[in-house]
Amino acid sequence: MPTVKIGLLGLGHVGSAVADALRVNGNHFAVRTGAIPIITRVAVKHLHKPRRVTVDPDLLTDDTWRVVRDPSVDVIVEAIGGVEPAASYLTEALSRGKHVVTANKQVVSARGNELTQLAGAVGRVFAYEASVGAALPVIRVFKSHLVGDRVTEITAVINGTSNFILSQMELGRPFATALAEAQARGLAEPDPADDVTGRDAAAKLAILIRLAFDAAATAQTIVHRGIDTVSPEDVARARSDGKRIRLLAVARRTNGTLAAGVFPASVPREHPLAQLDDEENGLLVRSDLAGELFIRGRGAGGVPTSSAILGDLASTVNSTSNGSPAVLKEVEILPLLTFDREQAAAYAEVDGR
Amino acid sequence: MPTVKIGLLGLGHVGSAVADALRVNGNHFAVRTGAIPIITRVAVKHLHKPRRVTVDPDLLTDDTWRVVRDPSVDVIVEAIGGVEPAASYLTEALSRGKHVVTANKQVVSARGNELTQLAGAVGRVFAYEASVGAALPVIRVFKSHLVGDRVTEITAVINGTSNFILSQMELGRPFATALAEAQARGLAEPDPADDVTGRDAAAKLAILIRLAFDAAATAQTIVHRGIDTVSPEDVARARSDGKRIRLLAVARRTNGTLAAGVFPASVPREHPLAQLDDEENGLLVRSDLAGELFIRGRGAGGVPTSSAILGDLASTVNSTSNGSPAVLKEVEILPLLTFDREQAAAYAEVDGR
Repeated sequence: MPTVKIGLLGLGHVGSAVADALRVNGNHFAVRTGAIPIITRVAVKHLHKPRRVTVDPDLLTDDTWRVVRDPSVDVIVEAIGGVEPAASYLTEALSRGKHVVTANKQVVSARGNELTQLAGAVGRVFAYEASVGAALPVIRVFKSHLVGDRVTEITAVINGTSNFILSQMELGRPFATALAEAQARGLAEPDPADDVTGRDAAAKLAILIRLAFDAAATAQTIVHRGIDTVSPEDVARARSDGKRIRLLAVARRTNGTLAAGVFPASVPREHPLAQLDDEENGLLVRSDLAGELFIRGRGAGGVPTSSAILGDLASTVNSTSNGSPAVLKEVEILPLLTFDREQAAAYAEVDGR
Repeated sequence: MPTVKIGLLGLGHVGSAVADALRVNGNHFAVRTGAIPIITRVAVKHLHKPRRVTVDPDLLTDDTWRVVRDPSVDVIVEAIGGVEPAASYLTEALSRGKHVVTANKQVVSARGNELTQLAGAVGRVFAYEASVGAALPVIRVFKSHLVGDRVTEITAVINGTSNFILSQMELGRPFATALAEAQARGLAEPDPADDVTGRDAAAKLAILIRLAFDAAATAQTIVHRGIDTVSPEDVARARSDGKRIRLLAVARRTNGTLAAGVFPASVPREHPLAQLDDEENGLLVRSDLAGELFIRGRGAGGVPTSSAILGDLASTVNSTSNGSPAVLKEVEILPLLTFDREQAAAYAEVDGR
């Protein structure tokens, strides 16, 4: 079976989760895609830092250029963040004929168009599903699904840290405690100011605007307000009005103009975006053919992000595959004719708290 | 610009909607994919039947084999339904090097594995997003997104007609009236017995089981009960208990066995699947990396189905594209910093009725 040799940039929350996911689900991935994924090099900032994840120390290097230029590497998976030097690394990787998979919303929002063009020119994949909404297939929905649709509106919750903090504030916890908890869980950005000022959501919205409306946008072109403007009193008042404050990212097309913004809003409890708890993200899209489409799931954290990265990795391996293994398992399918009450109760608890 | 020449099989609700969508959004599709979509032949059962959709009469033929064998056709879009003769047409089309896009859940559930293998062997696309959940990207989620994940459970509402009838019964309308209304709206299958007995949902669940669990399943291997077993009293009782009856399609993996079934269940209102109204469909997936993912949207009708078909058509055109047009529009992005109350109220009305 052929292999796909991966050069991993970064071994923080996301990079570690990718290494873990490939160790645990590597065989599964190989059966499904027809190629064995192997991490052949890992670029880190500090070689001797103690780490949670066990990676063969021989793979580690603190020379990122060496990974990007290694002729044996087929795909660069980038999980370091920031516009530079990430953009230079990814440009070099694509120019050398490597596929690129990235979780970095800053580089995609600032330089995504140029990297997409370069990838097209060299016939390689530039994939960034993990850059918005972690485990939610929000990029794929625009790139591969709503291709023939005209999108009229996007309303989304795409900053997991803000949603987590707001959910905690609803339980009476102070802002600072909730933020510290989000950081401890690996949900927050390295600089949490990006999360709480709405800047992170604006960068992600810029990416969605490019895909949904074929329009040039960057984080700087989108006016944003963050949850740092929300007081405990605001949260309590919304609650007593049957609403929840959520950080919305909205883009709307009307007669050839586009209106967009990121802001905290008081959303009626019945609204699907008001039902997102903790670090959940949600995307509501309106388009002419599909009508209204809603997606909800885990929008932050290393493990959900690794799910999207493995999906992107599969797209680099096997673009002609029809996405099914050659041999299907012959399993006995037991009849199931009841909806188990404990499970229904568990869902109700999750959604009704 | 290159073209993609389409042979359309069938001009019912789905076929007509595809012709309409390509007429209205054909340029949009061309800008995004780099290929101009052109319907070059349309196979119909009755040549002179009056039709809602305006198709050049010269394109029509009642000889389906002629369309399938036409050397100028690049892609067959199949919207006729049923296992045979559809399977023979699609096999012939693939053997002749054409891509195939189908909305036909019967043929995909009965013969999808063999058609997928054939497409792989000849290097062509066999795509069937429209066969389950109309506008929802449920096939893409398994084929391209959760590739590296191990799925443990699927819980879904995937029969729009049943959900529509149950929603109408909640308003006190009789079953027969609701079914007639679903047929008039183009939601129901040609034989509505497939909808109300749960057979249609079982066929769709078989497709999802193949993709999610890499397991061989057909509609026949899945025990199903339909909404024809639900009385007005059942609906009223669920309602007074704070629940809604929904037709669930469930598949669950435990220790190497798979339990699956289709059945009406009383679902707590807080559950995301209980919130689906009318012909909406929903899919809840649990997997090891992504956690819980939920998708909701319009699950029946010609127009939402055409959305999925155009997405599949794009995949046949441009498999190396990165999914963005070469030139992005330079639009002024107006600041938006409020959540419009009328809109929030409209959503609340949709979701809270």
